[in-house]
Amino acid sequence: MFKHDKNLLEMVRVERPNPQYATMLQEQLGGSNGELKAAMQYISQSFRIKDPEIKDLFLDIASEELSHMEMVASSVNLLNGHDIDAGGSQPSGNIEANVLTGLAPYLTNGSGVPFSAAYVNVTGDLPADILSNIAAEQRAKVVYEYLHRQINDKYVRQMIDFLLNREEAHNTMFRQAFQKIQATGSNRDWGVDEDARLYFNLSSPGVNHFSVSNPQAPSFQSSNSTQ
Amino acid sequence: MFKHDKNLLEMVRVERPNPQYATMLQEQLGGSNGELKAAMQYISQSFRIKDPEIKDLFLDIASEELSHMEMVASSVNLLNGHDIDAGGSQPSGNIEANVLTGLAPYLTNGSGVPFSAAYVNVTGDLPADILSNIAAEQRAKVVYEYLHRQINDKYVRQMIDFLLNREEAHNTMFRQAFQKIQATGSNRDWGVDEDARLYFNLSSPGVNHFSVSNPQAPSFQSSNSTQ
Amino acid sequence: MFKHDKNLLEMVRVERPNPQYATMLQEQLGGSNGELKAAMQYISQSFRIKDPEIKDLFLDIASEELSHMEMVASSVNLLNGHDIDAGGSQPSGNIEANVLTGLAPYLTNGSGVPFSAAYVNVTGDLPADILSNIAAEQRAKVVYEYLHRQINDKYVRQMIDFLLNREEAHNTMFRQAFQKIQATGSNRDWGVDEDARLYFNLSSPGVNHFSVSNPQAPSFQSSNSTQ
Amino acid sequence: MFKHDKNLLEMVRVERPNPQYATMLQEQLGGSNGELKAAMQYISQSFRIKDPEIKDLFLDIASEELSHMEMVASSVNLLNGHDIDAGGSQPSGNIEANVLTGLAPYLTNGSGVPFSAAYVNVTGDLPADILSNIAAEQRAKVVYEYLHRQINDKYVRQMIDFLLNREEAHNTMFRQAFQKIQATGSNRDWGVDEDARLYFNLSSPGVNHFSVSNPQAPSFQSSNSTQ
Amino acid sequence: MFKHDKNLLEMVRVERPNPQYATMLQEQLGGSNGELKAAMQYISQSFRIKDPEIKDLFLDIASEELSHMEMVASSVNLLNGHDIDAGGSQPSGNIEANVLTGLAPYLTNGSGVPFSAAYVNVTGDLPADILSNIAAEQRAKVVYEYLHRQINDKYVRQMIDFLLNREEAHNTMFRQAFQKIQATGSNRDWGVDEDARLYFNLSSPGVNHFSVSNPQAPSFQSSNSTQ
Amino acid sequence: MFKHDKNLLEMVRVERPNPQYATMLQEQLGGSNGELKAAMQYISQSFRIKDPEIKDLFLDIASEELSHMEMVASSVNLLNGHDIDAGGSQPSGNIEANVLTGLAPYLTNGSGVPFSAAYVNVTGDLPADILSNIAAEQRAKVVYEYLHRQINDKYVRQMIDFLLNREEAHNTMFRQAFQKIQATGSNRDWGVDEDARLYFNLSSPGVNHFSVSNPQAPSFQSSNSTQ
Repeated sequence: MFKHDKNLLEMVRVERPNPQYATMLQEQLGGSNGELKAAMQYISQSFRIKDPEIKDLFLDIASEELSHMEMVASSVNLLNGHDIDAGGSQPSGNIEANVLTGLAPYLTNGSGVPFSAAYVNVTGDLPADILSNIAAEQRAKVVYEYLHRQINDKYVRQMIDFLLNREEAHNTMFRQAFQKIQATGSNRDWGVDEDARLYFNLSSPGVNHFSVSNPQAPSFQSSNSTQ
Repeated sequence: MFKHDKNLLEMVRVERPNPQYATMLQEQLGGSNGELKAAMQYISQSFRIKDPEIKDLFLDIASEELSHMEMVASSVNLLNGHDIDAGGSQPSGNIEANVLTGLAPYLTNGSGVPFSAAYVNVTGDLPADILSNIAAEQRAKVVYEYLHRQINDKYVRQMIDFLLNREEAHNTMFRQAFQKIQATGSNRDWGVDEDARLYFNLSSPGVNHFSVSNPQAPSFQSSNSTQ
Repeated sequence: MFKHDKNLLEMVRVERPNPQYATMLQEQLGGSNGELKAAMQYISQSFRIKDPEIKDLFLDIASEELSHMEMVASSVNLLNGHDIDAGGSQPSGNIEANVLTGLAPYLTNGSGVPFSAAYVNVTGDLPADILSNIAAEQRAKVVYEYLHRQINDKYVRQMIDFLLNREEAHNTMFRQAFQKIQATGSNRDWGVDEDARLYFNLSSPGVNHFSVSNPQAPSFQSSNSTQ
Repeated sequence: MFKHDKNLLEMVRVERPNPQYATMLQEQLGGSNGELKAAMQYISQSFRIKDPEIKDLFLDIASEELSHMEMVASSVNLLNGHDIDAGGSQPSGNIEANVLTGLAPYLTNGSGVPFSAAYVNVTGDLPADILSNIAAEQRAKVVYEYLHRQINDKYVRQMIDFLLNREEAHNTMFRQAFQKIQATGSNRDWGVDEDARLYFNLSSPGVNHFSVSNPQAPSFQSSNSTQ
Repeated sequence: MFKHDKNLLEMVRVERPNPQYATMLQEQLGGSNGELKAAMQYISQSFRIKDPEIKDLFLDIASEELSHMEMVASSVNLLNGHDIDAGGSQPSGNIEANVLTGLAPYLTNGSGVPFSAAYVNVTGDLPADILSNIAAEQRAKVVYEYLHRQINDKYVRQMIDFLLNREEAHNTMFRQAFQKIQATGSNRDWGVDEDARLYFNLSSPGVNHFSVSNPQAPSFQSSNSTQ
Repeated sequence: MFKHDKNLLEMVRVERPNPQYATMLQEQLGGSNGELKAAMQYISQSFRIKDPEIKDLFLDIASEELSHMEMVASSVNLLNGHDIDAGGSQPSGNIEANVLTGLAPYLTNGSGVPFSAAYVNVTGDLPADILSNIAAEQRAKVVYEYLHRQINDKYVRQMIDFLLNREEAHNTMFRQAFQKIQATGSNRDWGVDEDARLYFNLSSPGVNHFSVSNPQAPSFQSSNSTQ
């Protein structure tokens, strides 16, 4: 069951409306590495998890991502301001906000492409799902870095700082979870076949700088843990 | 902020696995009238609502729809059972569940088309948004009626009964909200122009059975309210 | 059978080319509340309607929406003008028009997202379909209000005025049709179950401002009719 | 302006319901080579055509394709029959028809993928547009050939025969139109550059069986014309 | 098997970064007439071709289109430059490049819509497939003509010239292939039915400027060949 | 530049046609974890890589994935057999293959959803891109495990074995590449902010089983390397 608390996880505000930036920030609302994608991915994956601690972790993080989505949308809403005007003096406005949604935030990426569950990775295999989540958190952090660089509004920057750091925290926790389950599922019997040791040199010129003589399943450094 | 309670809003169970029906039930998970669509629509609309009572209503219902999504997904998960086998004796299996998600529920409709925010209607105009929600709840009820008819599993039928009735409740409440705001936004100045009174008879043969001599903005019967 | 008359339903012209506005107007050509969506929705719904008067109404309006689509596209075509130049001095051009379609109108929304039948609602249940249509007409009106506000070209404004008023007329007629069939299909046996009377208070803080002690199926005020 | 005549262009009937075949026939309703695609392509292209005879041809054929869409949808409607039952004894049913549309025809392809304007080709260049149309008509014919082969219902076969022959007629007329405009637009100045005469042999083993020593713009045999 | 040579098929460079133009050039990377679409279409079609000379031709051209994709992407990459800044002084930037991809080229069209296999035409019928390819090459040429007109950068113009001429070469070769197989598949038994000789005059006013008294299957002028 | 060698990377054959399984195998041709997705992801990422060894690795693997795509498509082609028959005795056929592509392989997933570049992850940040690739390879392996379980055809199993092992090899090599660049890009300055150390306990009941007192950037065990 999901419950909603009208307090945001962390308050958001803006120095001033900035519709052009609102468009860009939409990337983290309805885009391929955005908060909705993250929430939906972890919720979808959680249904078949048997380990109660890991299931709990996935649902904690999923709930937080939904709460991030709410923060990002609140910020887009404030940045959109109050004046419908897609054709005016702004260098490049947020077209859908001005012709379709009445300046309400909308579940698209920065280019207006609607959110799609095609962004969501679910395999039912815990090592593959957690690796997907680690990669997703890392990509989300990168997008926030790009967004941080393109705004001077101190309140928006504060929100981005907060969210970026939360992605780091989630990433760290997913790696701890990976260590716990690393000998299971698709990580078992890794590299026992001869074909797993080959290197095909198919882009020339170029020599083999990498090799796979002793393939091992993925495993993270223990320094990621908390001892 | 969103919080998760590990208890389902209403417990779900199944008499037995039924992968073919799981496919059909996916329609209400990731389909055009499904629970995720409803939750996302009401959350997205809520950001620009100023009336605190109506905003509260939208967020109550949105949270409940997220909780319905969880119930539907839990049921799909149980119906998918434990045996990966898309090519076997079942009349027509759930292909993605068997080749992609390891039998985990997935955010698609019954045909495997990924959820898209193209299903979500947001206009920033309260009369239009509430009318969209009333229509969405009515459609969701109809889909549950179709799904009810095609399953004998008593526990699945119980869940569908519950969800179908909840859509009726939401529908009723949205109409109360509509009565409260009916003289605002796009409902103002309705039909003052001559063009709003015309009937173009463009499919022949056929005569005009309807007319628009005195156009009025939408308004529901007061019997929908509770006094 | 569909026939085409080379006269537009209502002549369109523009004071001058305005490629930036052409982009915005595309929203009503290939967007989620646009004319093509409306035409396709009513045609698709019409196939299973048995009541000849209502079927006639749906097909009259569908044919008119196709004719609106033609008007909007003609206007986009004029607004696009004659000079291919997406990178020039315009604040934000219509990229596809300049690189793909040679300034021809294109079945996308204002952001360039292709029209999708995901926008089209069909349930085979007449109350649900008509409620969907009423909501769709209200949303289409809102989009035209936004578009009206962002253009000074008097001819474009005339066209938008005309189309906006036609959506009001359609809305009014769909409500008359709803009154005729309101005791049928998904409107029957409404709210007989206890679950249809509950309110879940899931967004806090907040109290119940609405209730569902006596749920009734949707029904519009008789003042919508024409007596 | 579009007008609708309640008589189908050609009457359709079926020997008996056949939901499995209805699914397949949906391909020509909302699929990539279907009737809606053809109608939308020719309408969209027509807006910038200056030659009145060719513009007339495009709109005649577009109107006919809309009328074909109506025939195909009517046939799907009859083939869907009257019993909602996606999980029963049929080898593989039409899932959306049974859970979403109440057996109404729906604008998807045979797999349930919604119609998308991504199927529609418009360039604003007459030679390219007509070549696109010739290719589209040929593909539509092929799909009807596949569909013909998989049904024994004599009435459905009659309809497919009719539609298949109409695609041939359209194809023939588009080629006549091409001959008329063949020295214009993208067909001018063809092959004047040295790069247009090269052959890159990039899939080996294999030798050059084709060459481009004297490249000419596309032009159809005069036997396609009617003298 | 595919192999990669780190040399581009033809070297690309730019006079200076031009992010606005990079956006437009993306059309030929991930758009509906772009290089990826062409490569995927010809590869997909090749699998069922039995004639070894034609299969060889398809794979030669497909490999060249992949190599064109690499050239276009390399050029987009250079045009994107080095400064992430979607909100600055550029008239209208490449939003995804600035918020998502770190200025890397991305498989979308000029509006940011992701590449879709919905653009790819495959029928398993050789006449239909080759006609699709001739049309696709003609459209690709037209897009390059539009792109050529909107840039002054001499190196980008050189690349576009090269690619445009290559599309002409492919077009010419596909027509030679068509002549070889023109009496096969969907080109057989053309127009034998009476329905293939009708003209429906459905857009009025207008008279029949075209006729189909003697319909013939498509066939190109022999002047297209090289003997 | 890409070149094609008509020899497959590894020969494929099938014991007998199996259209139902062909549908399932399509998942790895045009699905979200399929071979085309992998090839496009690594090619797209490669454009901005400066380290020549890593760039070489990405292009070697991308070329191999294109070659895998060819193998999978060849196998789908053989499994589709020679008889167009979507409505016959097979439990659930491959609809598009029977009505659209003439049994040619098609760039969709197992449910017929067209390939979309929405599956492709590119960030321009090397740690994020490589983590995305490791996750992608692990998911691809899992899909092959599911596919392996559902077929008895020994030749198809051999192909799947080969491809599954190749994904392990790629995974291993991407981890070696990660070790080489692990102190760069988004991996720098990890966890310096207090917000990166918090745990929000948002799904109850449940306690914190994980913590982030000392967050570190991702880093794989050295045992993955080849010393």
